Amino acid sequence: MKEPLTLSVADDELALLTDLYQLTMTQAYWKEGMHDTPATFSLFFRQLPPSRRFILACGQQHAAATLSQLHFNDSAIEKLASTGRFDDDFLNWLSNWRFSGDIWTVPEGTPVFPHQPLLEVDAPIAEAQLLESLIMNLVQLETVLASKAVRMAWAAGDRPVVDFGMRRVHGIDAAVRGVRAYKTAGLSGTSNVLGGLRHGLALNGTMAHSYILAHDDELSAFRAFARHYPNTTLLVDTYDTLQGVKNVIEILSDSPSLSVSSIRLDSGDLGSLAKRARTLLDDAGYSAIKIIASSGLDEVSIADLIAQGAPIDAFGVGTQMGVSADAPVIDMSYKLVEYAGEPRIKHSPGKTNLPGRKQIYRRRDTQGQYLGDTIAQRDETGIDGEALLVPTVTRGAINRDVMDDAEHARTRVAEALPCFPGTVTSLADGESDYPVELSDALAHLSSKV
Amino acid sequence: MKEPLTLSVADDELALLTDLYQLTMTQAYWKEGMHDTPATFSLFFRQLPPSRRFILACGQQHAAATLSQLHFNDSAIEKLASTGRFDDDFLNWLSNWRFSGDIWTVPEGTPVFPHQPLLEVDAPIAEAQLLESLIMNLVQLETVLASKAVRMAWAAGDRPVVDFGMRRVHGIDAAVRGVRAYKTAGLSGTSNVLGGLRHGLALNGTMAHSYILAHDDELSAFRAFARHYPNTTLLVDTYDTLQGVKNVIEILSDSPSLSVSSIRLDSGDLGSLAKRARTLLDDAGYSAIKIIASSGLDEVSIADLIAQGAPIDAFGVGTQMGVSADAPVIDMSYKLVEYAGEPRIKHSPGKTNLPGRKQIYRRRDTQGQYLGDTIAQRDETGIDGEALLVPTVTRGAINRDVMDDAEHARTRVAEALPCFPGTVTSLADGESDYPVELSDALAHLSSKV
Repeated sequence: MKEPLTLSVADDELALLTDLYQLTMTQAYWKEGMHDTPATFSLFFRQLPPSRRFILACGQQHAAATLSQLHFNDSAIEKLASTGRFDDDFLNWLSNWRFSGDIWTVPEGTPVFPHQPLLEVDAPIAEAQLLESLIMNLVQLETVLASKAVRMAWAAGDRPVVDFGMRRVHGIDAAVRGVRAYKTAGLSGTSNVLGGLRHGLALNGTMAHSYILAHDDELSAFRAFARHYPNTTLLVDTYDTLQGVKNVIEILSDSPSLSVSSIRLDSGDLGSLAKRARTLLDDAGYSAIKIIASSGLDEVSIADLIAQGAPIDAFGVGTQMGVSADAPVIDMSYKLVEYAGEPRIKHSPGKTNLPGRKQIYRRRDTQGQYLGDTIAQRDETGIDGEALLVPTVTRGAINRDVMDDAEHARTRVAEALPCFPGTVTSLADGESDYPVELSDALAHLSSKV
Repeated sequence: MKEPLTLSVADDELALLTDLYQLTMTQAYWKEGMHDTPATFSLFFRQLPPSRRFILACGQQHAAATLSQLHFNDSAIEKLASTGRFDDDFLNWLSNWRFSGDIWTVPEGTPVFPHQPLLEVDAPIAEAQLLESLIMNLVQLETVLASKAVRMAWAAGDRPVVDFGMRRVHGIDAAVRGVRAYKTAGLSGTSNVLGGLRHGLALNGTMAHSYILAHDDELSAFRAFARHYPNTTLLVDTYDTLQGVKNVIEILSDSPSLSVSSIRLDSGDLGSLAKRARTLLDDAGYSAIKIIASSGLDEVSIADLIAQGAPIDAFGVGTQMGVSADAPVIDMSYKLVEYAGEPRIKHSPGKTNLPGRKQIYRRRDTQGQYLGDTIAQRDETGIDGEALLVPTVTRGAINRDVMDDAEHARTRVAEALPCFPGTVTSLADGESDYPVELSDALAHLSSKV
C-alpha cells in the first residue's frame, strides 16, 4: 500500500478544501469579466431542528477571520492545474488572489433564530464564492456542537458538566474545535488534553476500568491511584457499584493519609445508585466526597436525574453531546442575496430566502429581558434594539477589536440565556413564542423581489 | 481578542489528542512498575444501531499504522509539564517512548458484527493506553461514515452516487477523511477538491444557484457556463424546474456547438420531475443527456426513486450521509481483555465483553457465499474460514504488505457485499440472521472469567 500516513490538514492546504464548483464557477465569472461584481451572500437556516428552540451561533467570527487570510499557494495551484479544468491565466489570477471584502457576523455565542444571518459576506462575487464551502463547514461544526452543549449546561444549572466525548466525535477537528464550542456553551471542563490546552478549558480526568482490571483487585487499584493523585476521582462500577463505594470508604478508613475528592458512577440506574452511594459515604463520615455521573447522559437524562433529587454533583457527557445525536446537522444555506447592488433570491420550492443585505435588532425591556427581534435591511435606521451583526472583517482586514474569544463568548451566553422567555430555553421539543419580525422595508422588498 | 487563528492540528500535535486519564493512568502504571506488563486491548461494539445490520470497518488499519509512529515531542512534553500533574522522571520516560507492540486489525472495508474486534492491540499496558482515545476517534469517524455511505451505494446499485456533503459534515477532518470512507464504501465521486485529490476519488462538480442568480436570466447563465465547460452539468431548478429543462433544450437547439452531459434537479418531487424532464429531453432529441438528482437524499429516498422507476442516472448526496444522521455514532469500546497473560473482563451491567486475544473466522460455501463467522481465541487452530484479523503493526513496525489502500478496500467491499445473505444487506431496520458464533474454547473461557 502506498497511501501516505498523514492525518492532518495544514492551514495552507485549506484553500483546496472547497467544492469543485466554487472553483469552476469562479473561473466562469473571471472569463465573463463578472468576478469583480459586488455581491452579498448570507449564511442562515430556514428552520430549526425539531429538538432545538434556538441555535447558538458559534465559530462564525473565528471562521470569518481565519478565512479572510485564505490563499492558494504554489502547491495548491499545481494540484488544480493537474485536474485539467483550469486555464493558466485563471490560475495565475487565483495565485495572486487575497480576500478584499467585508464579513459581518453575529458575535460568538449569539442565540439565533430562523432566517437570521449568522454571517454576511460583501465581496466581489468570485471571492465570496471561494469562501463558501469552507466557511459553512467550519460554522456548522461549532454551531451544531455549541447548540447541543448549551442544553447540557442549562439542564445541569449550577452543577458542572464535563466533556468526556473526544473518542466518539467525528474526527480530529471535531475533537479539538469541539472544545471551543463547549467552552462557549458553558461546560466546566474537558478530558481532551489538546482541546483543553488550545482553547483554555480546564482539564478533567478520572480513571478507566482498565486500570482497575489491571490490578489484582479494586482495593489495590484504588489505593495505588489515590496514593499517586491526592484528591482524585475513583471509578466505582467495574465490578459492583455499591461494593466499589464501600471499597473507597475502606481505603480511606485504613489510610488516613489518602484523600479522594469524588467517586464516579458509570453504569446502572444512576439516580438510585447515587442516593445509595451518598448514604454510604455520609454514614461513613465522607460527606465531602462528591459524586460524578456519566454513561450515555444527555440533557434529558441530566434534567431527569436532577428532578429525581439524585445527589449527583457533576455530570460527564460524551457521545450524545459530541455528535449532537438528536440534531447532528443544521440545514444552513449560504445564498446570494444581492448582486451588483440589486437584491436577488432563489425561488425553488421550500427554499426561499430574504433578499438584500441585512441587520438583526434585538430588543430588551428595562429589566434586560429580551422582547423580540427585527430582521431589517442593513442600511435602515431607527429600528429599536441592539444591532447584532458586527464588521468582523473589513476590506480583507480582521477587526480584532470586535472579535470575541471563547471566554467572552461564554460570558455572553451565560448572561443572555436567562433573559430569554422560558419558551426559548425549554428543553422540550416544541416552538418558542419569541417574536422575530421583518422590518416593514424588508417585508416590502421581500414581497417585491 | 488574542485567540490564535489557526484551525489545523499538525501530525506532531496528535500525541496530546487524548483523554487526560490516559496520561495519568500511564504515569500511575509507570510509578507502580506495571507499565511494561503485557496487555491486550480489543476495539469492538456490543450492539448495532437500530438502522444498521452490519458495520463497515474503515480506517482501523490506517489509524493503527499512523498511531504506531506516535511520539511526544518537546513542545508536547512542555505542555504536559505546565499542567503540574506529571513528574519530570515520567515526562522524561514519555519523551523517549515509541510504540513497541503489535496491532491486529481487520482489513479496511470489512463488514463486522457485534463483539467482533475491529482491532486488537498487544502491547505493554502503558503503550496500549496511550493509543486508546485517538485510535477510537479515528476509527469512529471513518467507520461511521463508511457504514452509512455503503448503504447509499447499495441502494443506488449500478447508478453512480457522488458526495456533495463537505459543507455540512463535522469539520475539516470529517470532510477530508470522509472521502476516504466514501471511496471505500463505493461512491463514484466527490465535490470535495482536497478530499478527492488526497484520497484519489474522482472530482465532480455542477453549478450553484448563485451562478444562475448572478446572470440576467437562466438562459444567459446556461449559455455562458456551457461555453466555458463542454459536457457540463446544468442546474435547472433555480426558478422553475421544467422551464429550466426547456431552457437547456433551447440553448442547445440555438447553438449546436454547445454540449451538455447532464442536468441536475435539486428540489421538488424528484421522481415526478425526473420523468417529465426525461420526456422533454427525449422529445427534443437529447436522450443522451443524463439526469442527476440531489436534495436531502439518503438510501431510503434513493431506493424509493428507483422503485418508482424515476429516470435518474446519478445521485448527489450530502447532509444525511455526511453526518450519518440516522446513526451518527457507533458505541465502540476499547477494553482490556488480557493482562500479564491472564484474560480479564469488566462486569458492569450491560457492559460485558469477551475475554482474551481473539481471531475472527468467516466461512464461505463453494459458490463464495458467506455462511457465518466464528469468534475464537487467537491461538486456536482448526477453525474453518478465513482469518480476518491481520498483523498490521508488529513490534512497532508497520507491515505495509498486509495494508490495503482505499482502492483495494473498495474492491473488497464491492466483492463481499453480494456474498452476504439478503438479511445482512437489507436497508430496512431489523436484524440479520447471519450466524456469528463463539468457538467452544472462547465460550468456555468467557463463562469461566
